[in-house]
Amino acid sequence: MGDALPINVDLVNDDTDVVNPWTVTSKSDSGVDYDKLIKRFGSSRIDESLLTRLENVAGKPVHPLIKRGIFFSHRDLHTLLNMKEAGQAFYLYTGRGPSSESMHVGHLVPFIVTKWLQETFDVPLVIQMTDDEKTLWKDLTVEQSMNMARENAKDIIAMGFDVNKTFIFANLDYMGRCSAFYQNIIRIQKCVTFNQVKGIFGFVDSDVIGKIGFPAAQAAPAFSTTFPFIFGNDVLPVLIPCAIDQDPYFRMTRDVAPRLGFPKPALLHSSFFPALQGAKTKMSASDENSAVFLTDTPKQIKNKINKHAFSGGRPTLEEHRELGGNTDIDVSYQLLRFFLYDDDKLESIRIAYSKGQLLSGELKKIAIETLQSIVSDHQNRRKDVTNEILEQFMAPRKLNYNFKEIKSK
Amino acid sequence: MGDALPINVDLVNDDTDVVNPWTVTSKSDSGVDYDKLIKRFGSSRIDESLLTRLENVAGKPVHPLIKRGIFFSHRDLHTLLNMKEAGQAFYLYTGRGPSSESMHVGHLVPFIVTKWLQETFDVPLVIQMTDDEKTLWKDLTVEQSMNMARENAKDIIAMGFDVNKTFIFANLDYMGRCSAFYQNIIRIQKCVTFNQVKGIFGFVDSDVIGKIGFPAAQAAPAFSTTFPFIFGNDVLPVLIPCAIDQDPYFRMTRDVAPRLGFPKPALLHSSFFPALQGAKTKMSASDENSAVFLTDTPKQIKNKINKHAFSGGRPTLEEHRELGGNTDIDVSYQLLRFFLYDDDKLESIRIAYSKGQLLSGELKKIAIETLQSIVSDHQNRRKDVTNEILEQFMAPRKLNYNFKEIKSK
Repeated sequence: MGDALPINVDLVNDDTDVVNPWTVTSKSDSGVDYDKLIKRFGSSRIDESLLTRLENVAGKPVHPLIKRGIFFSHRDLHTLLNMKEAGQAFYLYTGRGPSSESMHVGHLVPFIVTKWLQETFDVPLVIQMTDDEKTLWKDLTVEQSMNMARENAKDIIAMGFDVNKTFIFANLDYMGRCSAFYQNIIRIQKCVTFNQVKGIFGFVDSDVIGKIGFPAAQAAPAFSTTFPFIFGNDVLPVLIPCAIDQDPYFRMTRDVAPRLGFPKPALLHSSFFPALQGAKTKMSASDENSAVFLTDTPKQIKNKINKHAFSGGRPTLEEHRELGGNTDIDVSYQLLRFFLYDDDKLESIRIAYSKGQLLSGELKKIAIETLQSIVSDHQNRRKDVTNEILEQFMAPRKLNYNFKEIKSK
Repeated sequence: MGDALPINVDLVNDDTDVVNPWTVTSKSDSGVDYDKLIKRFGSSRIDESLLTRLENVAGKPVHPLIKRGIFFSHRDLHTLLNMKEAGQAFYLYTGRGPSSESMHVGHLVPFIVTKWLQETFDVPLVIQMTDDEKTLWKDLTVEQSMNMARENAKDIIAMGFDVNKTFIFANLDYMGRCSAFYQNIIRIQKCVTFNQVKGIFGFVDSDVIGKIGFPAAQAAPAFSTTFPFIFGNDVLPVLIPCAIDQDPYFRMTRDVAPRLGFPKPALLHSSFFPALQGAKTKMSASDENSAVFLTDTPKQIKNKINKHAFSGGRPTLEEHRELGGNTDIDVSYQLLRFFLYDDDKLESIRIAYSKGQLLSGELKKIAIETLQSIVSDHQNRRKDVTNEILEQFMAPRKLNYNFKEIKSK
């Protein structure tokens, strides 16, 4: 079973945390214990030496989301960097499960780092919209899920991806446009037993058979032959940036890869984006007050953060001035960790809040302004993403790379 | 669960017979007990009144394979005939699991009756090649199964199907050519639990996840929206002629159909084609002496039947002349039941053999000549089936029917 875990180890609720692709909860105010999670999942911490190496290979500072440890865990990133240094081409793969028409700001996080990686290493990117997964898991029809996939893809495109280097596909559509996808799914499904997906995902006998087979659909894009129009028949390594709750899919993929003649995918894991109510509560698309959405107005953002953002401040002004606030559990501060990329400014805010010089309301104001700006910029770009542009991104086509040439270097 | 059976009832080996899509064995010389099987499966016997009714609606005598009771069981054929009489259009669906490059004569049987039904009722026909199933169940690669699907499809085409009324598709190819197929598979897979497929097919936890999901791929073509280029969005009833070991797939399909807004498929079940060694042994593609293949030479056919065809004759000439042969277990006679369509001639052979007037060697000679003629005619037609003709049959396209018009009648 390679680096996959013994059956059910990752599904056992430890004292505080549950982490799997469908449930992320923690009983701690500071959220999931990521050190414990790394041990349970068997991945590796991104340490200072890896950060330094990444900066050396990149030739520039790493993205703040990596530098700040929000992307905190990895698998085989050293191997990928070795290959990169040896002139080997690779590609990026990430995805999104489109369960609502509107994405929230936390959904941007893996795509921000994916975009940075793409621009830094100049590599092709494939983005999977798992509308089939959402049909199977949620009370959604095929048509509803397909529509959400298209709406979400527009939000992703609005982040500024390069159409010449990026292929976005929704499973319920793409499956019917390229038989290589289904062929790789069948190859994967031939290598994985029900016992294995029981162990990795916690499936039970009363689960529908669509759920049981689905992990292969999320695994297949980690194999470059799933996209013959981009890669021909070449076998390329892949780097997958994703939230760590998606890791079970890719542990399974890594087990299967060598048996099918593919390299194991490398992974870059992010921690979870906090709900406004705090890191121990669950963000829910059905609770519009649990997150700032990309469709929110400035006023909605202001009200949500003022009313709902969990504060690490003290109960009274006097206590706050004396003892200072707790940035580890303060959601407004955490939002700035995710979205305020001026390191000096963030550090001065942290110090001022910790010392009680900055009040909770003042911190919220900074968070509000930061998110208002991000969301309104996003909305401006989003309104220019027409159906025509969407079709361009979703058309199976050659990207601006020639892997035969790169390989023969 | 509609007309599906309680869990495992159809999988329990009764005293003599095992019948499921992957195993058909009997301990009796006369083969599977079909009366028992009808009870276990919950289907209906094709009786005299149904034969009469079928002849009335068809306006001509039924095909000998139906008349002789080789097609012996059905589901909802009366309902389908009612709809036909009321002017409702329907379509035919059958298939083949391509596990070897060369088909044997028994594989022709469902297609002979399918062709008769198509010509009699002038309806569109879809034929599924389950190359995905064979990849999952056999020691075959995707490429090997896809190649076998194409070779087998050529044999099916050689039977004289009308390209303007027939669509042949192989799953590993067609999945990538029409997203409606995968979308219907997901709809079906959302309705069926692992518990259900355990009960219907006998799957176990150590089975690969591809097997667990596969039944949906065989179910989907029973829903007309799987072929939008033929049927548009119209919902048409379907009649499925098949060997009765395939019934579990369609019991599952019939359960799911009403929940997805489709009529339950009607079925016409054939009994099993005997191995040369007798009805209680299993025909095996890996044992070339167990069947007459469509690639056999006249000499091979002669040798196979003379050497291997199980005889219902008596040990000595004297005994045979006195007591007569047993046509129920004589494979040469059974071959004639399947392939000699002159009723008077078959009956005179039966009487002569039963009375001991016809000897075993003489009966074998008639079987040899009958099969030599069928196989050589087939080979003559088969050599004219070019790759170009194959592509025509396998291209998703409109057939020569307009269902909007038929429905509005």
